Amino acid sequence: MQRLHTIQTKMTNRGWDILMVQTRPNVFYLSGFDTDPHERLLAVLLFPSGAPLVICPDMEINQIHETFPEAEIIGYTDSEDPWLKLSGFLKTNSYQVENIAVESSISWSRLNKWKEAAPLASFHEADEALLNSRLIKESEELSLMKEAAALADKGVETGIARLEEGVTEMEVVAAVEYELKRRGVREMSFSTMVLFGEKAGDPHGTPGSRRLKKGDNVLFDLGVMWKGYASDITRTVFYDSVSDEQQEVYEAVLKAQQKALSLVKPGVKIGQLDTAAREVIENAGYGPYFPHRVGHGLGIEVHEFPSMNKENTDFLQEGMTFTIEPGIYIPGRLGVRIEDDLCVTAEGCKSLTAFPKDLTIVPSV
Amino acid sequence: MQRLHTIQTKMTNRGWDILMVQTRPNVFYLSGFDTDPHERLLAVLLFPSGAPLVICPDMEINQIHETFPEAEIIGYTDSEDPWLKLSGFLKTNSYQVENIAVESSISWSRLNKWKEAAPLASFHEADEALLNSRLIKESEELSLMKEAAALADKGVETGIARLEEGVTEMEVVAAVEYELKRRGVREMSFSTMVLFGEKAGDPHGTPGSRRLKKGDNVLFDLGVMWKGYASDITRTVFYDSVSDEQQEVYEAVLKAQQKALSLVKPGVKIGQLDTAAREVIENAGYGPYFPHRVGHGLGIEVHEFPSMNKENTDFLQEGMTFTIEPGIYIPGRLGVRIEDDLCVTAEGCKSLTAFPKDLTIVPSV
Repeated sequence: MQRLHTIQTKMTNRGWDILMVQTRPNVFYLSGFDTDPHERLLAVLLFPSGAPLVICPDMEINQIHETFPEAEIIGYTDSEDPWLKLSGFLKTNSYQVENIAVESSISWSRLNKWKEAAPLASFHEADEALLNSRLIKESEELSLMKEAAALADKGVETGIARLEEGVTEMEVVAAVEYELKRRGVREMSFSTMVLFGEKAGDPHGTPGSRRLKKGDNVLFDLGVMWKGYASDITRTVFYDSVSDEQQEVYEAVLKAQQKALSLVKPGVKIGQLDTAAREVIENAGYGPYFPHRVGHGLGIEVHEFPSMNKENTDFLQEGMTFTIEPGIYIPGRLGVRIEDDLCVTAEGCKSLTAFPKDLTIVPSV
Repeated sequence: MQRLHTIQTKMTNRGWDILMVQTRPNVFYLSGFDTDPHERLLAVLLFPSGAPLVICPDMEINQIHETFPEAEIIGYTDSEDPWLKLSGFLKTNSYQVENIAVESSISWSRLNKWKEAAPLASFHEADEALLNSRLIKESEELSLMKEAAALADKGVETGIARLEEGVTEMEVVAAVEYELKRRGVREMSFSTMVLFGEKAGDPHGTPGSRRLKKGDNVLFDLGVMWKGYASDITRTVFYDSVSDEQQEVYEAVLKAQQKALSLVKPGVKIGQLDTAAREVIENAGYGPYFPHRVGHGLGIEVHEFPSMNKENTDFLQEGMTFTIEPGIYIPGRLGVRIEDDLCVTAEGCKSLTAFPKDLTIVPSV
């Protein structure tokens, strides 16, 4: 795989003997194998040259062999210590173990296991080498993200179709997820959020038994995991009617989002997108009601690099993917957020999500 | 809260100045606040005496204040460094920071942030103090786990009701989750598994577009998160008819599970349950087809302590909760697993899940 060679070259340049990844997203990125082994160790080890190595529970061997045929695989049972097996293998095969790169998210206890297995090794943070590689999506990855985004669009469409007076937030959540699972989605990218009226005034509210009333704003925030890639969309619609305040807030959020989108192209400083959207909302008089960053990177994880906050001084590059999602939340009254999944192209930006954003009043009959 | 005092006493005995937790399960256990802040820091700090401290994103302050009114709360925005705010607060208020206990799962990068904030501190593993506390469930926790288990039962019932010739595995998954979400379940405890026929022969198979045929075994493995607690049930039924081999395998698994259940009571060595179930399956001639441990602890997490593997020499205690789930998997042919959620009582054991386990043939009309 091309991405393995690229990372192996980085390893050589940095003098790393071993790069180990053991988080689900990076294991998937390197091996194509996507599962959560819970507390069990499932790790991919790369070396500057030669075949990659996987250490995994015995019962995963067959599936890993299918997605990652180039790897050597060491299996272990629930009653064996994977670290002993691993260090035995490295010793028997005379691998160099002086400079080991690991994810900075590796747990303290796993790092201590490594230190026992390789007492003289120096440890290095592998994140930047991995994340810089993941930051720019290959065209195959973009196709999968487009599919994931289309399913998110479908989720919003399904949710809107389910709105009727008296329905609960959770009943709408259930209908959305039913439709997506029926289409083969195995996992949402996060717990589906459907919030009515004042419930949406809390940017981290959770859906419950609140029932839909005429005049409510309805906020949908949802996404799917699809063949290893995440989508994430937010739309806000109004049920039966819209008040002047709701309309004013909606238009401010939409204008803020459109402003940020209009700036996206390679070479633009990432922080500018947050600043630009925030300025629109401040000018509309709602500055204090936009308490979060304007977006987040998206890909194998629903939150990944780049962080779309105003302090980010990195530059947009072709192939980066992220969300833009300004919002206004007035506690106890209403909340509006509009979010799309974007990809930076050579000329500007392409939206992966496509559900309409014009102010929408869902009729009550 | 009683559990805070208990842990504070442990802190005093161990000479810890600060105990910090920052994983979702332990934050929930100590604060009653249950959310995933993604990459953002959300931590509870305990001191040997005095009020607990929470550091969290600004937007979570209100909800944490509601579930954890006794805590002092420090908020931060997306553009502030939470570690600077935290160390500033500890310094200003003259807290002792010489002995700090953290979860062993804390990331290497977070531990390094701590080390910068408190360069002279010694770090200790807090796990045992927390896990021993979580291992024994309070009666309020058991009531919630019973509710979570009843929803899992309902999931199996719904899935069986959806079986018809030609339905796909994912259509059944969608129907099960729809029914549970409609009842207010916000999150499954893991991706619902419905596997037909030979698909169940892989203990980690994933549901897809395989269609149901007469004579298939159907394996359901599912659970919910309910008010912070997990359930996890497995049932295997047969569609339209059962072959001699399927029946033999089913009976061996059921007998193995019943054997393990019959041994549960306080004072029994945990490893004995695995050994006993395994013996039944070996005697039936299927030893090589039972590749995993007999179960896992269950509570705030779907996999927690105790580990129900044959090497575990700890003893069962009243109030422990776990699964017992032997299985037989014949690759390319069939798979059977039966799993219940158990609680150790003074006299023996109570099953939280209650769906019937008699060999069931679901009629095809």
